[in-house]
Amino acid sequence: MLSKKLFKYNFLITKKWRGFRNKPDFTKNVYQVERGFYNYLQEHHLKFFEQLLGDDTEKVLTNLCDLEKYNVDWYLQARGSSTVVLKPKTTEEVSEIVKYCNINKLAICTQGGNTGCSAGGVPVFDEIILSTELMNKIIEIDENEGTATCQAGVILETLDNALAEKNFMVPLDLGSKSSCHIGGNVATNAGGIRLLRYGNMHGNVLGLEIVKANGETLDLLKIRKKDNSGLHLKNLFIGSEGTLGIITKVALQCPPRPQTKHVAFLGLQSYDKVLQILKKARRELAEIISAVEVMDSITIDWSSEHTKLKPPIDRYPYYLLIETSGSNEEYDGLRFNAFLESALVQNYVLNGVVTGELSKMQSIWSVRERLADGFKKHGWFGIYDLSIPITEFYNLVDETRAYLKNQAEYVFGFGHLGDGNLHLNVITKKYDQRLVKDLEIFLTKRVFNMNGSMSAEHGLGFFKRKYLPLANSTSSYQLMKELKRLMDPNRILNPYKVFP
Amino acid sequence: MLSKKLFKYNFLITKKWRGFRNKPDFTKNVYQVERGFYNYLQEHHLKFFEQLLGDDTEKVLTNLCDLEKYNVDWYLQARGSSTVVLKPKTTEEVSEIVKYCNINKLAICTQGGNTGCSAGGVPVFDEIILSTELMNKIIEIDENEGTATCQAGVILETLDNALAEKNFMVPLDLGSKSSCHIGGNVATNAGGIRLLRYGNMHGNVLGLEIVKANGETLDLLKIRKKDNSGLHLKNLFIGSEGTLGIITKVALQCPPRPQTKHVAFLGLQSYDKVLQILKKARRELAEIISAVEVMDSITIDWSSEHTKLKPPIDRYPYYLLIETSGSNEEYDGLRFNAFLESALVQNYVLNGVVTGELSKMQSIWSVRERLADGFKKHGWFGIYDLSIPITEFYNLVDETRAYLKNQAEYVFGFGHLGDGNLHLNVITKKYDQRLVKDLEIFLTKRVFNMNGSMSAEHGLGFFKRKYLPLANSTSSYQLMKELKRLMDPNRILNPYKVFP
Repeated sequence: MLSKKLFKYNFLITKKWRGFRNKPDFTKNVYQVERGFYNYLQEHHLKFFEQLLGDDTEKVLTNLCDLEKYNVDWYLQARGSSTVVLKPKTTEEVSEIVKYCNINKLAICTQGGNTGCSAGGVPVFDEIILSTELMNKIIEIDENEGTATCQAGVILETLDNALAEKNFMVPLDLGSKSSCHIGGNVATNAGGIRLLRYGNMHGNVLGLEIVKANGETLDLLKIRKKDNSGLHLKNLFIGSEGTLGIITKVALQCPPRPQTKHVAFLGLQSYDKVLQILKKARRELAEIISAVEVMDSITIDWSSEHTKLKPPIDRYPYYLLIETSGSNEEYDGLRFNAFLESALVQNYVLNGVVTGELSKMQSIWSVRERLADGFKKHGWFGIYDLSIPITEFYNLVDETRAYLKNQAEYVFGFGHLGDGNLHLNVITKKYDQRLVKDLEIFLTKRVFNMNGSMSAEHGLGFFKRKYLPLANSTSSYQLMKELKRLMDPNRILNPYKVFP
Repeated sequence: MLSKKLFKYNFLITKKWRGFRNKPDFTKNVYQVERGFYNYLQEHHLKFFEQLLGDDTEKVLTNLCDLEKYNVDWYLQARGSSTVVLKPKTTEEVSEIVKYCNINKLAICTQGGNTGCSAGGVPVFDEIILSTELMNKIIEIDENEGTATCQAGVILETLDNALAEKNFMVPLDLGSKSSCHIGGNVATNAGGIRLLRYGNMHGNVLGLEIVKANGETLDLLKIRKKDNSGLHLKNLFIGSEGTLGIITKVALQCPPRPQTKHVAFLGLQSYDKVLQILKKARRELAEIISAVEVMDSITIDWSSEHTKLKPPIDRYPYYLLIETSGSNEEYDGLRFNAFLESALVQNYVLNGVVTGELSKMQSIWSVRERLADGFKKHGWFGIYDLSIPITEFYNLVDETRAYLKNQAEYVFGFGHLGDGNLHLNVITKKYDQRLVKDLEIFLTKRVFNMNGSMSAEHGLGFFKRKYLPLANSTSSYQLMKELKRLMDPNRILNPYKVFP
């Protein structure tokens, strides 16, 4: 049953290289998508946008060269053919654009930092790209309350740096922090490396300002940590990937910035030992843990080969990166050291390094964070972003390897162990449609059998929209469609995404 | 404008004592509510329910004496006149009941532990009371993942005790923990004393099972910590107070149980010092803080008089209760002691006690947790559950006192300082309609001017439903009504609540 359903849709993550190395084929061609009944952009539409946004050439882009980076996703896997990028600066401008598009049946693809992994932020056809790049104002940081309010286009790292000056932090950290936008983080319910410590966006977003599909502004911009005065509408937009409304402002709760941090990079003999260490860490380090990342030896082989970053220890079957952060330099250091010493004595760990020095911590982190750098240089890669029981992480990696036999160049897994989020990566010399389909059916069956998720943190976007009816019960899929109809009756908001 | 709007609705929290001390007047009479166009319960309806739920007399209550405790709320402020309580044990039974009620236009009031502060869980007229009391099965506790799945009627403390055996905890703690139900906690987005450490229900609920107004079961019972495979529907039901669907099962993420705890009870000279201590605690204790509660001297006078609990230190203008919890007995104790010593030396604190002994911690906590015990013994009381900037907590208490002059017996404030949640309490010898109305207008203006909330954690329920259009923008109020229409077109779910 499952396999039949899957076949109806497009493949998961595929990339055919025809021609230029850095220019994927048009998504609409590769995936044979049918264009929706939207109007095509015409001269008089453009004139309206130019009048609305002013003479500022920075705000309306139509030069095809300028457009290219907005049409193609970061992983070079998807490519749209939009002919205009609009860059409003204010909510009022967004509202006018959307109202006009709704009346004129013009489709919109909202784009933040364009760092998504599921191609949710790039157009499939000629959707108007509404970029939040110029909506980059930090509106308020309240030191007494530990809250921040900003426009949707503020870069995660920029906000975090501003908060750092007042000893607070954004409760979210991602490899793409230097370019992703807060609005995009909220729209995709971004997870990242510190979710196990600070929780997800649903817990951290206090309020949102939304522009609805009809252009109306929905003021949900509450700023208090406790507020139960009505239905919690803001949460409907978190993780909705731009399909229900456009996020224009965000209010976040921000925890105090840790004053001390330590990072350990450990080599382990088996995955059993990895799980034992996790249990031990949860017990002994508990509230000071801020990241637990796991990698296997092939991950590190890949990294060494493709990023030229040298891991700080020799080759072991498994690696753990554990980060602690807290407010007491002395005690946190003592605790972490005691934990590591006893882990060595108890034979959980074969080798490891630990540091509290910024530069050394950064170089350890870059081994983990830059893993994806090499992907783009290869023939075909599939990144499967799975939530499964932690006990099954490397069973699944091994099963996948066995399933693929010698058809894959690399099969490796790394991920956010503390959150049960495995990134399973398959790399082959060239794209093979049959193989990718089969692999996908194999993985989906296995993951769903474990009550797992085929999209832990990357969202559905374009590539994984087929999962919407597969991953959700019939009644909940039905309700999602009803909500979409209610919120965006003309389906102008991010078409071809999330909903298959 | 505001005052006119307010006058249109009923008063906030009022209680007139006519006759029996323990029996409030019928809500419908006190607040002059108009009954909705629902059918009245008839013999053949009852027969259907009895056939459905079986001969078990425990599952269908019709004896008026048995019904009384389900018709009256915990604070003895609201009283409905339902003639039947249904106690299904399974989702299927809930589904059949709701389907039947929807077809027959019978209104339903879902009730958990009946511990709410806004009368959201008791009927206003003759709504059928659907009690979750018998839906008390813990389905699974997963030690590897740190998650728990249970039926909606499991008592918070029962679940917490079950988790304690496996060294986990429910990330929620309330004064009413021994009787409130998990389903009710989720339906009201309950806050409580440890929100500042563990976050709100939106961050902690992994999945829900819902019975919709048409009886259909909505399976949103996901159990993974990261799952972005579709719209996040479950969040729509968190804090919706039973108006959009009935929660039948809950899956929660559960943090490791702390292995060590310390509680300090401090006396301070001024509220400025309270704020300085909070800042210092956030910096020096940060991740081990699990509660920061503030009280003023009148709160403690009230407590001493009405609960006969003796506070552990003499009379001071302000008191702070700070709790830390963590995983390292030795270091946490040293840190807390060092913090308190320097607070004394720096003159932030005049006096205080600190303890790590369970019985002593419990007796300190009971001073805070049993504050409401005396309320019911008094003439009239208003509990205002406010979110305002922490800098304004006692300005507002003082202003309220000045506003009321000698018309109030007691005006005092206590609350969850770490979350910006003030409970402002006004107690008078007898109920005075004029006074209550005026006070409410005064408070609403002040609170809204501060971008605050008139319902931080208690929800709107019946008493505060008037705030729905006041506390929300026109467009968001409109969307809430549209969602209600979509989810419950016959308005059978918890009528007279949340929506005015």
